Amino acid sequence: MNFTSDNSHGVSEPILRALARANEGTAESYGADALSAAVEKAFCALFEREVAVIQVATGTAANALAIAAYTPPYGAVLCHRDSHVMTDECGAGEFYSGGAKLAGLDGEACKIAPATLSAALARMPGGDQHRTPPALLSLTQASEAGTLYSAEEIAILAKIAHERGLAVHMDGARFANALVSLDVSPAEMTWKAGVDVLSFGATKNGAMAAEALVLFDPERAQELVFRRKRAGHLLSKSRFLAAQLLAYLEDGHWLAMARHANALARRLGNGLAQVPGVRLAWPVEANEVFAILPLSLDARLRAGGARYHSWLGHSAPPSGLDSGSERFVRLVTSGLMDGEEVGRLLDLARGDG
Amino acid sequence: MNFTSDNSHGVSEPILRALARANEGTAESYGADALSAAVEKAFCALFEREVAVIQVATGTAANALAIAAYTPPYGAVLCHRDSHVMTDECGAGEFYSGGAKLAGLDGEACKIAPATLSAALARMPGGDQHRTPPALLSLTQASEAGTLYSAEEIAILAKIAHERGLAVHMDGARFANALVSLDVSPAEMTWKAGVDVLSFGATKNGAMAAEALVLFDPERAQELVFRRKRAGHLLSKSRFLAAQLLAYLEDGHWLAMARHANALARRLGNGLAQVPGVRLAWPVEANEVFAILPLSLDARLRAGGARYHSWLGHSAPPSGLDSGSERFVRLVTSGLMDGEEVGRLLDLARGDG
Amino acid sequence: MNFTSDNSHGVSEPILRALARANEGTAESYGADALSAAVEKAFCALFEREVAVIQVATGTAANALAIAAYTPPYGAVLCHRDSHVMTDECGAGEFYSGGAKLAGLDGEACKIAPATLSAALARMPGGDQHRTPPALLSLTQASEAGTLYSAEEIAILAKIAHERGLAVHMDGARFANALVSLDVSPAEMTWKAGVDVLSFGATKNGAMAAEALVLFDPERAQELVFRRKRAGHLLSKSRFLAAQLLAYLEDGHWLAMARHANALARRLGNGLAQVPGVRLAWPVEANEVFAILPLSLDARLRAGGARYHSWLGHSAPPSGLDSGSERFVRLVTSGLMDGEEVGRLLDLARGDG
Amino acid sequence: MNFTSDNSHGVSEPILRALARANEGTAESYGADALSAAVEKAFCALFEREVAVIQVATGTAANALAIAAYTPPYGAVLCHRDSHVMTDECGAGEFYSGGAKLAGLDGEACKIAPATLSAALARMPGGDQHRTPPALLSLTQASEAGTLYSAEEIAILAKIAHERGLAVHMDGARFANALVSLDVSPAEMTWKAGVDVLSFGATKNGAMAAEALVLFDPERAQELVFRRKRAGHLLSKSRFLAAQLLAYLEDGHWLAMARHANALARRLGNGLAQVPGVRLAWPVEANEVFAILPLSLDARLRAGGARYHSWLGHSAPPSGLDSGSERFVRLVTSGLMDGEEVGRLLDLARGDG
Repeated sequence: MNFTSDNSHGVSEPILRALARANEGTAESYGADALSAAVEKAFCALFEREVAVIQVATGTAANALAIAAYTPPYGAVLCHRDSHVMTDECGAGEFYSGGAKLAGLDGEACKIAPATLSAALARMPGGDQHRTPPALLSLTQASEAGTLYSAEEIAILAKIAHERGLAVHMDGARFANALVSLDVSPAEMTWKAGVDVLSFGATKNGAMAAEALVLFDPERAQELVFRRKRAGHLLSKSRFLAAQLLAYLEDGHWLAMARHANALARRLGNGLAQVPGVRLAWPVEANEVFAILPLSLDARLRAGGARYHSWLGHSAPPSGLDSGSERFVRLVTSGLMDGEEVGRLLDLARGDG
Repeated sequence: MNFTSDNSHGVSEPILRALARANEGTAESYGADALSAAVEKAFCALFEREVAVIQVATGTAANALAIAAYTPPYGAVLCHRDSHVMTDECGAGEFYSGGAKLAGLDGEACKIAPATLSAALARMPGGDQHRTPPALLSLTQASEAGTLYSAEEIAILAKIAHERGLAVHMDGARFANALVSLDVSPAEMTWKAGVDVLSFGATKNGAMAAEALVLFDPERAQELVFRRKRAGHLLSKSRFLAAQLLAYLEDGHWLAMARHANALARRLGNGLAQVPGVRLAWPVEANEVFAILPLSLDARLRAGGARYHSWLGHSAPPSGLDSGSERFVRLVTSGLMDGEEVGRLLDLARGDG
Repeated sequence: MNFTSDNSHGVSEPILRALARANEGTAESYGADALSAAVEKAFCALFEREVAVIQVATGTAANALAIAAYTPPYGAVLCHRDSHVMTDECGAGEFYSGGAKLAGLDGEACKIAPATLSAALARMPGGDQHRTPPALLSLTQASEAGTLYSAEEIAILAKIAHERGLAVHMDGARFANALVSLDVSPAEMTWKAGVDVLSFGATKNGAMAAEALVLFDPERAQELVFRRKRAGHLLSKSRFLAAQLLAYLEDGHWLAMARHANALARRLGNGLAQVPGVRLAWPVEANEVFAILPLSLDARLRAGGARYHSWLGHSAPPSGLDSGSERFVRLVTSGLMDGEEVGRLLDLARGDG
Repeated sequence: MNFTSDNSHGVSEPILRALARANEGTAESYGADALSAAVEKAFCALFEREVAVIQVATGTAANALAIAAYTPPYGAVLCHRDSHVMTDECGAGEFYSGGAKLAGLDGEACKIAPATLSAALARMPGGDQHRTPPALLSLTQASEAGTLYSAEEIAILAKIAHERGLAVHMDGARFANALVSLDVSPAEMTWKAGVDVLSFGATKNGAMAAEALVLFDPERAQELVFRRKRAGHLLSKSRFLAAQLLAYLEDGHWLAMARHANALARRLGNGLAQVPGVRLAWPVEANEVFAILPLSLDARLRAGGARYHSWLGHSAPPSGLDSGSERFVRLVTSGLMDGEEVGRLLDLARGDG
């Protein structure tokens, strides 16, 4: 019963098989291989338009490259104060951009509200040489609270950003989970809503180490191939990165994985919510459950073998937490997880375990 | 007959099997897994002392982290003018260090001679605020010319560097090839000779994407875990990086691979040297052959299906090249290569193909 | 009646004369001149201990150098959310440090309270590789609200910081104004209270362009001379920078200037506070007056020739501002200002103008 | 007899008077003052076209800002291997650009020959992700050897650079000295010959601390005002920087100063060349004399009170130096220097002293 992280789970069978298959024969190195070319084509088809793809091994690399491409060293990135780029990447965006400033905005359920964005921009006059001009809006989809921006919400935020000349980045570490939950197309959730650059995650959803920075302005790739190389993120045996992404997308594997993970999370959330004394911090819209548990329940679950993270300090729970009697926790499901584990945890929670 | 690069070859069977094996069950993420801990132990045993290991997916990341750890932003790195860190990493060392200067030194066969190092240091008074003080010496072993520094040569260079307060880095992208050729221990080729920090390569020698930054001053790891994370090089599913390194070291697999590759290169070099009109640019000491071929022979080899890179522009051939009638080329062998390919290329070269 | 900024005023007569005097004959360049050596001595005497001094032309340079010296690229600086380093230097600290993160803390009257600092540090576990470890606490004295930390308050904050391994920086752009108001010694307001590095300002208080970064750990100067040079802040004709600082300190000129400016501000603040409808945002403790004026009064003052900045957007007024009928403004006095101007403004405010 | 540096001399009378004059009354700060606006106009007139001017206090700041504006972090700057940006600014260009690479080219008399530039560019294929693409050519005028590029030579180099997409920077620390020697207009020596951005020096030629970054593409100023601020180079009392530049340009003061300095240097060079055993390293074309002196003469001059720098280690003398019996030295003249000093030095040299 390991609900600590989607990263605690391994690699899906189709992706593992694809790695073995890709191992046959020799191939061009450093991205000139046939599989890497196929990835670019697959993403163009997926997004129904020409895109450029910068393949990397980690989401932090994808996010930081996106920030660097769209934010000058003297600029500012607007993001949620509890967003991954702000709090979990040890200053990668600052590093890659050459010292840009990340400005954290408040917002319920780790989402930025349009009014909050507008107010922040009103306080940041772009032409004042004393202040870093805002250059990029970064949204996380699914958010760090496991919640979602609808395509309409994205469009509204993007419009506000674009009107002030900011570009829009989506940190899609859990892109698939959001997509299947919203039941929209990849195009609708991104460029059709105004997203300029996307960190497309695969690792959390069954890949070994594979992410794609998707550029809806393909011309940006010219700059990013240099930035990727100098960041040490151009893999020499690039075919193995490409093989993961291709297998991920093939036959809807990624969507099936995400649907399974989301369904487990919904079941988990619904089940926990019915346990006396338990509150859900936010609605379960992807594959994460944030809950406030009585300390006694928390102890029982852990004693029963359930593993998950206490989340205090990562982001604030939405309403007052009584830390003397309650614990704020995060439980994450994975497409590689067995539904039986969710059942066991719920049994434990209900005292049936 | 693909002699373009060791990176064109795939993953060895033991390493591929280890990846599948590592996929069982869940594991801690971000380096807290059991395999990552085992890697640290394995390297301590390998180097016969306490070391810290920073695992990353690329050699450029390892090199750039090493430079950043030992060179202040206002400092200088001394390296060969044709070294990989100087010419092939798109400024990664400059990026990671925050703008240090890489100063390229001349040297036959891509090796820095002690007198050259001493002379360069004499020209760089460390205490002059107008000039970047030298902070690090970086040596590549095996060198970019496929040649080797003996342990004694390393010790002499390291002594000169240390006397001026510089640390010593070894770019060991082909560490195994050098080691088996010199027939010394890992300790003798590194810290016993004065190396402070080592980029230990596995990818070129059969791994998928796995390198280790080995710190002979383990205290440095405190800083480097932050630098790795903010560079986006901390893999979430870190067990798959560790699994590669463990399988690489297990039962001397890495040494067997390197011996095989080196033997193929020696056979290739010796064979080519006997073909009329062919000169070897440098002695074949690892798994690379640099040769000057008559244009007609070059054309015959390529027509016969041999693939390799023209090397003009990468590094200068040691003696005058008649570019009207000759071509300067690099042929690389791999532990995953079939000896039969070498035979076929030599047959072609001798006109027997 | 120009109350817009202390920077709108020029250079005091003693300092201007010193510049002319320093112009006689030739001198060593780049800091090797006799006056620069005298500055170092003068600061040692002033602070009653050995210090090193890095002379620069701007306060932003001094602050950014201090941040870079004490914060690794992967570290964080704790400062007030409305502090100058956070909001008015266009990311200089981020630039000089190579991408450190500035974390803004809340606090009444632009001061950080001990409890706020402790709580912030509790949320920042230093050893988590995902998060930038806190490295430096930066305090502004006098603060951006024209308020002061007492020597005791500084000592308490410094103790909290030191216990967690942070260094303490003081942005003393208005150091003199704070000093004369607190009536303590330079030593008491700095290193005796735990300050490790000080940006000592002179420009706002009558110099042309002269600031001193004072290092209470003189060994740090070795690094900072390189950082200054590469930032372009080593003046070739350095004697003219040194001449300003020497004249500034000579015969208590700097203290006299600050006393005059502070007295004018007190008179201005007291006078305004007695005008019906006017509130002072914060107590007047140095040479700045922050006031909330009825819009009609604001209009009358401006029509009468008074110049000062509206301060909305720079920092929040302490209590609710009725922006429909009030304006939040800043008025700054200078040691070069004529007391008569204060009188005229107060006359205008009282309707006598 | 101080020939050590033009920076050892002080401030010209007209410029010192202008500083006093600028001190009257209050003024807008941070570049919004009337004098700063006048500087922009004066430079437009001087260059016979619209330009933007970024005023700073040091030449290193001007150079580094120019490099940052025209070189991406992953790019390369081509400059002479002994150029000031390469060897005397402690990595400022690398710092400001975020880690660009400065590639030093060989060249007689510190000048880059067209064939050298072409050959270097041929070795740097711009589209190879492994290598920093060349982005900027930096020329120093007058050069570090006191020699000049003719307007035609500049045009030829700029054409080569532009054809490969590089911008062209001129480090004009001794712009005036070059200009009066070539007897061309500022426009002819810069943008008409293909220069895109100019570091216009005034400090060495009589200012206190005043340089102008002149942008022939004025749109670039939008970015550079932010870069200047975050580098700490926006002076708060900006009128005093502007006052220097205005007085410098007024009534041809700058040209008169440069003509005087150049004439002294020519006389010094011609005189020394006639002394037995003395060789000039390079022709004297601006205000610097590089000479090879017999050690005995060197000793006699110094004993007689002459001061100048030994230049060994700064740049290589053009022909073999017999360091057992000769010394390579630099003597610099200034517009503020008395001709009588040159006479005394020559008398000493001829044994008449």
